[in-house]
Order: sequence, then structure tokens, then C-alpha cells
Amino acid sequence: MALRLSNLFLRTLREDPVDAEVASHKLLVRAGYIRRAAPGVYSWLPLGLKVLSKVENIVREEMNAIGAQEVHFPALLPREPYEATNRWDEYGDNLFRLKDRKGADMLLAPTHEEMFTLLVKDLYSSYKDLPVYLYQIQTKYRDEARPRAGLLRGREFIMKDSYSFNIDDEGLDEAYLAHRAAYQRIFERLGLEIAIVKAQSGAMGGSRSEEFLHPTPVGEDTFVRSEGGYAANVEAVTTVVPEPKDASNTPAAQVHDTPDSPTIETLVDQSNALHPRDDRAWTAADTLKNVIVAVIDPQGERRLVAIGLPGDRAVDMGRVEVNIGSLLGIGGEVEVEAATDDDLKKFPQLVKGYIGPGLTPDEKLLGAESATEIPYFLDPRVVDGTDWITGANEYGKHVYYLVAGRDFTADGVIEASEVREGDPAPDGSGPLQAARGIEMGHIFQLGRKYAEALGLKVLDQNGKLQTVTMGSYGVGVTRALAAIAEGNHDDKGLIWPRNLAPADVHVVITGKGEEIFSYGDELVAELEAQGLEVMVDDRPKTSPGVKFGDAELLGVPTIVVIGRGYKDGKLELKDRRSGEARDIEVAHAAAEIVAEVRG
Amino acid sequence: MALRLSNLFLRTLREDPVDAEVASHKLLVRAGYIRRAAPGVYSWLPLGLKVLSKVENIVREEMNAIGAQEVHFPALLPREPYEATNRWDEYGDNLFRLKDRKGADMLLAPTHEEMFTLLVKDLYSSYKDLPVYLYQIQTKYRDEARPRAGLLRGREFIMKDSYSFNIDDEGLDEAYLAHRAAYQRIFERLGLEIAIVKAQSGAMGGSRSEEFLHPTPVGEDTFVRSEGGYAANVEAVTTVVPEPKDASNTPAAQVHDTPDSPTIETLVDQSNALHPRDDRAWTAADTLKNVIVAVIDPQGERRLVAIGLPGDRAVDMGRVEVNIGSLLGIGGEVEVEAATDDDLKKFPQLVKGYIGPGLTPDEKLLGAESATEIPYFLDPRVVDGTDWITGANEYGKHVYYLVAGRDFTADGVIEASEVREGDPAPDGSGPLQAARGIEMGHIFQLGRKYAEALGLKVLDQNGKLQTVTMGSYGVGVTRALAAIAEGNHDDKGLIWPRNLAPADVHVVITGKGEEIFSYGDELVAELEAQGLEVMVDDRPKTSPGVKFGDAELLGVPTIVVIGRGYKDGKLELKDRRSGEARDIEVAHAAAEIVAEVRG
Repeated sequence: MALRLSNLFLRTLREDPVDAEVASHKLLVRAGYIRRAAPGVYSWLPLGLKVLSKVENIVREEMNAIGAQEVHFPALLPREPYEATNRWDEYGDNLFRLKDRKGADMLLAPTHEEMFTLLVKDLYSSYKDLPVYLYQIQTKYRDEARPRAGLLRGREFIMKDSYSFNIDDEGLDEAYLAHRAAYQRIFERLGLEIAIVKAQSGAMGGSRSEEFLHPTPVGEDTFVRSEGGYAANVEAVTTVVPEPKDASNTPAAQVHDTPDSPTIETLVDQSNALHPRDDRAWTAADTLKNVIVAVIDPQGERRLVAIGLPGDRAVDMGRVEVNIGSLLGIGGEVEVEAATDDDLKKFPQLVKGYIGPGLTPDEKLLGAESATEIPYFLDPRVVDGTDWITGANEYGKHVYYLVAGRDFTADGVIEASEVREGDPAPDGSGPLQAARGIEMGHIFQLGRKYAEALGLKVLDQNGKLQTVTMGSYGVGVTRALAAIAEGNHDDKGLIWPRNLAPADVHVVITGKGEEIFSYGDELVAELEAQGLEVMVDDRPKTSPGVKFGDAELLGVPTIVVIGRGYKDGKLELKDRRSGEARDIEVAHAAAEIVAEVRG
Repeated sequence: MALRLSNLFLRTLREDPVDAEVASHKLLVRAGYIRRAAPGVYSWLPLGLKVLSKVENIVREEMNAIGAQEVHFPALLPREPYEATNRWDEYGDNLFRLKDRKGADMLLAPTHEEMFTLLVKDLYSSYKDLPVYLYQIQTKYRDEARPRAGLLRGREFIMKDSYSFNIDDEGLDEAYLAHRAAYQRIFERLGLEIAIVKAQSGAMGGSRSEEFLHPTPVGEDTFVRSEGGYAANVEAVTTVVPEPKDASNTPAAQVHDTPDSPTIETLVDQSNALHPRDDRAWTAADTLKNVIVAVIDPQGERRLVAIGLPGDRAVDMGRVEVNIGSLLGIGGEVEVEAATDDDLKKFPQLVKGYIGPGLTPDEKLLGAESATEIPYFLDPRVVDGTDWITGANEYGKHVYYLVAGRDFTADGVIEASEVREGDPAPDGSGPLQAARGIEMGHIFQLGRKYAEALGLKVLDQNGKLQTVTMGSYGVGVTRALAAIAEGNHDDKGLIWPRNLAPADVHVVITGKGEEIFSYGDELVAELEAQGLEVMVDDRPKTSPGVKFGDAELLGVPTIVVIGRGYKDGKLELKDRRSGEARDIEVAHAAAEIVAEVRG
């Protein structure tokens, strides 16, 4: 049945919504596809629902094609399974928690690993039942700190999440690759360019993990890629580590007064003026900056960590966040921020601006056996034998020629420094370039973490119980729709790809009189008989200008105007994307329109 | 693609789930359609999801057919709109409430009147935009005190809810009748017998309201019907009120000792023995019982109410619950229970077993100006001029010939007595019969309550702002599926109606050897080519007995067995419902099966 603008529940808006920053958000609201119900929570209007169901169907078809079976879990779940895997706590403030009338703890699920694990445990017991891939297209909840950009980062959103269950690692690899390929097909059909980047697993646990990022300037995720094909989330980039240096000719460490060196730049200048080195000039990369950060674990406990890195690099808190947890033995997502003055006050031996590693084992300030009890981690570039200018733990003093391994050690190595354009890709495929993207999908090899926590074992061929190995795979369905809108618009409105548009053709009737409207009805009927989905602007009293504006805003790819030319036997056929228009004969209009749509 | 039991995510169970009481619950779990995730919260497995989507599509088609437009609202909503209509409080413990990370109050919506009202207010402004009917098929939440019977009363469930918006009452009537007719078609297509009963609006507010009850012994709702076609929820039945009596010849009230009358029966016996009346014997219907009940309002406040009713009737707490609120000026749903000893202790003038209305205006105990501050309501049968034996507010004493209107009055009339089989239908259509049913749908004329509370007004033809009038209409989608299962099973399993079954035909391969399996594949392909949905039991090592048992449990209406007869060119074609089986020739098996299915 044609979508008739004379009665379609739709009101297009001239003004952008006040809270909207990105084009997809502005246009989806202005064109009446969605409407805000609460921060990060949206209602779907008829046109939005039509596009959404097309996106969902593409996802569904590709999941079915790899043999995944559709199920549907509740959003409202009991606490216990998430307690067993520790995610009840690990999710922190991102989890919507509530109590039922009996006081039982419940949650709105952000993802369903636990429930799928328990379901398979409930029903299956033998290796013969495996592999099994299960998925759902379902409403998820995350209490984002900063819901933004409309559907791009919401608090209630639709995800396709799937889970694979295998008896062995080879099976998991196969499941992972099947999902990887299915995702490539999904995003291709959705018309979304994708960079598959190596990612950290974060709170999900597990080993191998890749993100499907859609490169776009409005993306929140920064990633890097090389011309040679490397792509990774900045959190996952590993540093190309230099060889250890021979420090046998390096002078002994020496402390100098450095009275006027408020910044690394002034310190370098002063060093070159007063304490020049023989072989070359000092640069910022010769200084070792020691930064104190505060790590807040999922339970809210706060502890300090010192990070030593070359002075020409900044600390990337995001990289610290994903890498510090395992070094400190913290499960779940941590937050990291710069230490505050209050934090530092508790450790008077830390002299702000002059913090350094210890000079000798007895005096050492930072490090494993440190008197400060602050663990100390080093950037991978600080290899044994490198020498540094760094703080002397005394006001107004720095130490020179302090050699890693000779004069100081640390509790470990951390990938904490910012990744910069021009840094070498870890696989040797060339220098890295920065890009921004939106995470459209994420695939994880979870391994046995969830199965172990929840006791999912099956009998193997030898009658022995084996823990099942799992994968988990997600596509942001509502987010994909927003990304498509983001990448398919101009200043006049949306421009839907043909396979996702709410209709194949938008017939605009602009003339007056019964004849033109009844011809419009005939044309619509003819197009529908040919299997086209038709939107028709049959509003009797709306001006042609408003109708044209709406047609461009709504974004159906082919627009047909029944207007001035009709009395001469002509209609106008217009391509929304290119803006090109041509006249077609009324006599064979339907056939021409069908040919245009079917292209 | 055929559903192949060799890899379908399914495990049929021999045992009923321990918490299951009704057949639909037991069988849907045992046959692997659903699985419990938490009390009153279920997961949908592949077969369940298939049937569910067929039910949803029938609902969708019939809603589209009356011009309703599909939208989709969030389940997670802000408090404010529900605060404006007072439902945030009125829903009491049935509402799942939660706070987000910023401490904002949110809820999981049990129904969406507020949001639809706000959406229409947001987008529409003129009578020309109306009428509009909007609907969604969406997950709803109610924190039921006693989730039970599987999907029949869950805490997370799917509803189709729609809302009509009209400028005038005639429009609302039309919208109401359109939905009423659509619901009749929906339930007819779902194969569910329905009694449409007059109902009380309860917390929804509004005027006209009818429930679509499906009569079934497992139903929780009691309703009554007459042979003449009257049907009503017992809560909505009104008493046929007798004419007032002439009491001019009734003796004056007289107090007697009634020492050994612990029950109404003994009181009646004693009265006939010691204080006989002239014209006829006393019966229980001559006694006036005064029952004290406790009313708990949505805020949890508790107050006592006295109800006077003939001694041969019990108080129906359900009828009190729906009728007492408006009498006391309480908005929202109240709970009513028998007063406890603790309640009564606060009013020492209430002599348990001998409570009566006051004897004279000065002495009166219950009533408008009562010293007890307990409001007193009477059954409609206690009309002016009727005389009663009732408590004398003194231990061991009753008063005789106490005349309503002459000797005592009350604060009002309440429909509080039980409705009994044989009571006259209020419309004169004959005596009432009791029946049990499940509420499958409910339609309400809300009127202007929500539009007024939320300020939904549009300009009328004269350019004046008019408050819109609304209707709200619901179908329990998951509940309908359960009711269908409840009404379509035998002791072996489910028996789906053809239009809702997860497949049209269930092919069971019981023989051994490659040939029989490859013939099975051929037959499946042929049936699918003809447009049939096929389930095939191709498990290589499962015994015929288990396969037959599963086929009966799963409930596909037509079963085809490729077994012993195959070598003689025969298959068995079996009707799951009748159990009738006949042999068909392999040579034209597909054609016969298609004919059987298309019937």
C-alpha cells in the first residue's frame, strides 16, 4: 500500500533539533524518521521503522546464510549470571540496574553472553550438538555517560548479537571467520565502507578481537591505518620496540641544577646550553617524563600509577585504560585520569615537575620495591641501555645520563603513549595515518572465559567433559541506519540507497484539479502492480515548493513530478542523488520509472 | 530453508518444568519453543520465534487494514510524562522503576498512552491532521505480584498497543468500533473464541471499555454471561436494583439478645425460633452483614471502609477494588483486603460479630457523620424501606426490623457483593452463568483525560483550540500465542492451527541408509519448491520412537513418515489433530501433501 502523504503520520520540520550536532541526527529528526523520547532514547516513526526493518532483514539474511539460528532473549534479566562472570560490577555506571517488587536485583542487558551460555548449557550436553551459532536482533541498554549524535550513541538501541559455541579452537576460528565474512557482506549490502581494525577486548575478555569501523569524520573512535593495509584501533597499536643499546660508553648519571625549566622545551634548551652532550644535541625525545595517573577500578577504588615515557610524547588515557587493568590484576573496565593535587599530597616524596625513577636501588623512589607504593611502568621505547634526562626527585634538579636497566628499573612495560601519524605500523607496512570512524560491528574470540564461569561443558568424543569455547559478535543495527544516513545526504536532506529507502519512488502531484490527482492514483496503482514501493505526495492544498522540499528531505532516490508538463503528456523524472532530471512521456511513464528504479 | 532437526537449536524435554501448572506453559517449554530466564521472563527459541512472528503478522495486517500506522516507542522512558498523568504513583508496585547514572527517574513502560499523546502533540496541530490511529508491537513490562502460567502472565511480554486521536466524540466512537472489529478479525484468524465483555476502566481512566476474553478453564478472569448475549467482567456487572419498599407497616426496630449465633445460619435459626416474623420465615437474605475492609491506595496509605450487604452474599474484593476508588476520591489502582484484628483494635466501638449501622441519628455508628470516621457503603439491594436483622453494636445483641432510610443511612452505594450464577443480567437478557477467561485484548475510550493532562490540543474548523479525544487498544501478543497453545494440544503435545504452525509439514525419516535420506531431501526440496514450509527430522541416529514422540510434541499439523513402507513405494501421511493416518504413493507424494496442507 502506497505511503500517502495526505495521511501518513509525518510532520517534516524546518528547524534542526537544538540538541543535534551531526547531520544524520538532524535530518532523521527533521524528516520525521525518529523522535527523541529521552536523552539517548528514540521513538521510531513510520518511515524510520520501514528503513529499520530493511536494515534488520539484511542482517538477518546474512546471519541465516552462515547457519546462525535466530532466538530472542529478554532485556530484563536477573543479576546472578552477570554476578558469576563479574560483569555486574565490571560494567560500572554503564549498566542500568533495578530492583523488582520483591527486592531482587535485575538489569537491562547491555549484551547477552551469560544468557546464551546458560541456554546452551541448559539444552546441550554433547560435542555432537556443536557447533551452534545463535543470534538475536534485540533491544539493548547502556547508560552511556554522554549519549550523543542521535542514534549513533544511544542508551536504548537495537543490536544484532550472535554467539558461537565450539568444542575446540579450530572450530572457534572457523566461527570467527564465518562471522567476519558475514559482516563484510552485511556492510557491503548496507553500503558502508568498513575498515576492520585490531582491537582490545576490554570488558569482554577473550583473545582475538576486531572492530568493524566505518570511517567518517563524525566518528568517535580514532584509528590508524597504513598504506600497506594495517588498520587498528589506537588502543590496540603496539609500539615498534628498538633494540637494546650498549651503554658501556655512556657517562655515569649526574645531577644538575635546572632552575628555570618549567617545560620540557626549556629543559632541553637549558641542557643544550649548560650540559651539552658530545655526540649530538639533546631533544625532547631524550627526556623521560614521569606522569602520575589515577586508576579507578569498577568498584570505584582509586589507586595511583606512574608512567615513564619519552618527553616528546603525551600519555593517551584511552590506551592506558585498556592496558593498565591486566598489569594491575583488575578485571573489568577501569577509568584513568590525571592524578589530582589531592592525590599527590598523599605522597610528599613526589616533587611535582621533578619526578624521576630512583638513582640507586637503595634510593629508588619508583619501581617494584618502591617506598611510594606507586607501581611504575615504562613506555616500550625505554629499552635497556637508553639514557635519559629525567627528574631527580628534588626541587630544581634533573639527572642526566640515567640509563635504563643500569640505573633504574620498572614494574613493567605499558602501551600508554599517544600513537602519532608517521609512527611505523607494527607489521612493517609503512607509516600510520590517523582516521576517525564509528564502530559498526565487533567480533570477539571469547574463548572459555564465560563457559568456565558458568560451567558450560559438554562430553567430547572420548566421553570426557570439555569446556566449550565461544565467540561473540555484534552489529549495531540502529547505529548502522544512522551511519547510512550520515553518509548519504546533502544540504537538502537524506538520500537513501535504493535497497534501504522507505519507498522506491516518490510521486509528487503538484498540479490542481481532479484529473491530475486521479492520474496520480492510476500511476501509483500501475507502479505498485509492478512491485514497486511507492510514496505519493497527494496532499491537496500543499504548495509545490513545500512538496519539492519534502521530497528532497525525505530522500527517496527516485522522484517523479506530475506537474506543469502533464497537460503536454510529460512527467519529470528526477534522481535525488545526482539531481539530474529528465522529462518522460505519460504514455509509458510506468515502464520508464520501473526501469530507472531497477537500474 | 527447511528446519532440519539434525541441526536445529532444539532439545525436547520429557519432564514438565517444575514451576509449570498449565498445559501451554509445560508444552511450550518441553517442545523447545520458550525457556524461562527469570520469574515471568522468557527467552524465545527458534520455533517459538517462528510462531510468534506469524501471530504478530496477523495483528499487523489487521491493524494496517483499519489504517493504523506502525511506530515503535522505547521501553525505557522518563518519569515526567507519567508524573503528569499521575500514573507514576498510581501503578504502584506493578511499575518497574529505575534511576539512570545521573539519578534521573525512569521506568519500563507498562503501556504508552503518555508517549503517544506527547508525540501527536509534538507533530500535529490541526483538526485536519485527525483522525490518526497509531500502533506498535512492542515489549512491555509489568512487575506482576504473581507472574504465573508461563506466557499467560509474564513480567516482560509483547503487546500490540494502539491509540486513536480524534477531534470529537463521534470520531472516537468510530475509532473504537474500527478497533473492535479489527480485534474480532484478529482473534478469528488466531482461532481464539472470544467473549467481548463490558469492563471497568481501572487505572486507565476513561468511559467505555470492553475486554476481549478468551473462555478457558485456566483463565484468571471470571466473567458472566447470559443466554441472551450479555457478557461482562464480574467487576462490571451492575445489580438489578429492586423498587423501594413501603415500610409504613414495618414494626419499630427492636433489639434482642442473640446469645448463640456465631454464624448467619445460627442467627437465622434462632430468629425464626425466638422472634418469628408474621408474614414469612427469616432467611439469610434478611440479615444485613457489615464487613470492614482495608483499602490501600497507590501511595500505600491504608484506610478502613464498612460495607453493608445481605447476609447471603459474600463481599467480592475484586469488585470492591474497582469500585471503591472513585467513592473515596482515590485515583489509580487500590488494593482491598479484609480488615485485620490490628485494624479493628483502633476502633473499640466496633464489636466483632455485632457490627451494625447506628440505631438513631444520635447514636449512629457508621455513616456520613459517623464517630468512627469509617465511611459506610451499602449494597444496591438495601433500598429504602427494606428491613433487616443486623448487629446492634453490642456484644450478644442484634436489632430486628431496622429499616433502611428510616432507621439508618449510609455514605453511598457500592457494587461490592459477589455476582452469582442465576443473578439476573442487568439488561434483562436472562440469568447469568459464570465462566473463566483470559484477557486477550482490551479497548478503552479514554476520552480527554490524557490529552488534558498533557496539553494535547489542536485547532478546530473555527480556529479554536480543542482538546483531542483518545482511545487506547491493546492485544496481548505473547499471551495470545500461549492461549492458542493452551487450546490446541492433547496429552502428547502441541497441535498448531495451520496458519500459525512453525512449519506446514513435518517430514520424519525413520528408515536407515543413504537412499532413504536422499529421497527425504528430494521430497523436502519438492515441497519447498511448491511454497511449503518444511520441518524435517533428518537426525541420523535417533530412534523412530523418539522421532514420532517429538513430532507429536512439536505439533506441526501434518506429519509425513518416510519409513518401512518406502521400499513398497508408500509414505504415511498423518493428521496431527485427528490422529488419522493413510498411506500415500511415493510417486505423487508431494502433490498429495500439498493438497492436504492447502486443504
